[in-house]
Amino acid sequence: MATAHFNEENSADIVTGQNANAKDERLRQVMDVITRHLHAAVKEIEPTQEEWMQAIQFLTATGHKCDDWRQEYILLSDVLGVSMLVDAINSRRPAGASENTVLGPFHIGGTPEYEMGTNICLDGKGEDMVVRGRVLDIEGNPLEGVKIDVWQANDEGFYDVQQKGIQPDFNLRGVFRTGTDGSYWFRAVRPKFYSVPTDGPVGKLLDDLGRHGNRPAHLHYIVSKDGFDEVTTHLFDPEDPYIDSDAVFGVKKSLIADFNRVDDPARIAEVGFEGDHYWDVEFDFVLAPKG
Amino acid sequence: MATAHFNEENSADIVTGQNANAKDERLRQVMDVITRHLHAAVKEIEPTQEEWMQAIQFLTATGHKCDDWRQEYILLSDVLGVSMLVDAINSRRPAGASENTVLGPFHIGGTPEYEMGTNICLDGKGEDMVVRGRVLDIEGNPLEGVKIDVWQANDEGFYDVQQKGIQPDFNLRGVFRTGTDGSYWFRAVRPKFYSVPTDGPVGKLLDDLGRHGNRPAHLHYIVSKDGFDEVTTHLFDPEDPYIDSDAVFGVKKSLIADFNRVDDPARIAEVGFEGDHYWDVEFDFVLAPKG
Repeated sequence: MATAHFNEENSADIVTGQNANAKDERLRQVMDVITRHLHAAVKEIEPTQEEWMQAIQFLTATGHKCDDWRQEYILLSDVLGVSMLVDAINSRRPAGASENTVLGPFHIGGTPEYEMGTNICLDGKGEDMVVRGRVLDIEGNPLEGVKIDVWQANDEGFYDVQQKGIQPDFNLRGVFRTGTDGSYWFRAVRPKFYSVPTDGPVGKLLDDLGRHGNRPAHLHYIVSKDGFDEVTTHLFDPEDPYIDSDAVFGVKKSLIADFNRVDDPARIAEVGFEGDHYWDVEFDFVLAPKG
Repeated sequence: MATAHFNEENSADIVTGQNANAKDERLRQVMDVITRHLHAAVKEIEPTQEEWMQAIQFLTATGHKCDDWRQEYILLSDVLGVSMLVDAINSRRPAGASENTVLGPFHIGGTPEYEMGTNICLDGKGEDMVVRGRVLDIEGNPLEGVKIDVWQANDEGFYDVQQKGIQPDFNLRGVFRTGTDGSYWFRAVRPKFYSVPTDGPVGKLLDDLGRHGNRPAHLHYIVSKDGFDEVTTHLFDPEDPYIDSDAVFGVKKSLIADFNRVDDPARIAEVGFEGDHYWDVEFDFVLAPKG
């Protein structure tokens, strides 16, 4: 029997046909899917040799931009919505449970655990904010002993780890644990939007596509308790100018909180602030049982 | 109107929706196709977070392997059949015209032009070979003044540029020009199969897929004449053990030549060889009019 050789019609079959002896069935399956979509995309695009070379150069430059401190391929995955899609696929939950979003690169270990109400803003810069709410199970029962790990950018859009020596270590980070009523509250400052790194090949691509690199203002949360599905998510500020155009597509409708301005001196005093206003953010989490 | 936020169903639309202001319509179109296929592939694969990270690390390592002397992303394109597919798309020709295949990384400029019949094997190593044939137009008329640029690996599977100081410069390279009868002939040695570089991430992938990195023995040709579509192609040896599993999918049925062994002392003497046999390879080229 004559063996089929490569042509435009059979190209993907010819390539995947070489994978029959793959050491790992999952790898074989993954490469079959990738090869089929890659060939289908090339057939739709019909790239010139020059365009193909531009693609090779882009992929090479993206790799060259990666080092111990910069991961340009994760950034590419982020701005193409792949990171969010992978997160969504791995975080399917029953209706009513809190939704996930991307972890992002700024989570660190070793964050101090605080009493409820602690102000995690250690340098006093920014507009005061109270964040409060409850953690519930799907039936609406309060959950005790839930660990809430929060971190956020400051009012200029920078995390502490991006401004070593400028911000105090562990600025705007805290771990809290719910009591019997399932409630939590802490004080911080209203975060600001910030840009993903745009000085590399991915930033150039965004610019060429007429896109900005900004992420709307948000707080990060990891909410966890034994026996429940861990929730890695954000709360978003609905008034942010980039709320509908997050560069990494992290926004989900259910994650947009209300930020309510409080000017009442009595309420300001009650939560321990000394300015003329603060922002009140209330957000509940609902944890689904594990599995 | 509420803006749609990202979910598993709408993910590709949400991402491509950000490209409306692309500076270049072609780029917008290309990224739309890439994004749709990328998201479709992710939805089929349903990668775990660990598998996603493996993909990020593979892409990063492939970039890091690239330098002035090594292009691991072109190698990846080659072993996934993408280079051949792009070549096929850009080399569509009327039936009967010679088919293209990939250029490969070993073509160089400055190759000497020789009289017909010259032996381009400069170090006498290998089994003698005569290559001969005609260059015709689609109607079968001989074409005069056609430039034939040939290059090949030696009988150990290495090109001269891979063995500087071991092989003579321009070993197994030559430029010939057809006369009024459209015919060509030259002498060389029978080439041997060789492997693409397998010491990088792409070689590891091939190994994991149970694939080898070998390219079946071949001669490279660029056949060109003003007013005709330039043909960049190979002639393949049908008896090569890898003829049906070229690591870069360069083999096309129409490019497999016959290699006929000649033991007749009279014929051996006639072509100017002194050994006990040579390989006779006859192959005609058919050039299509430009455009």
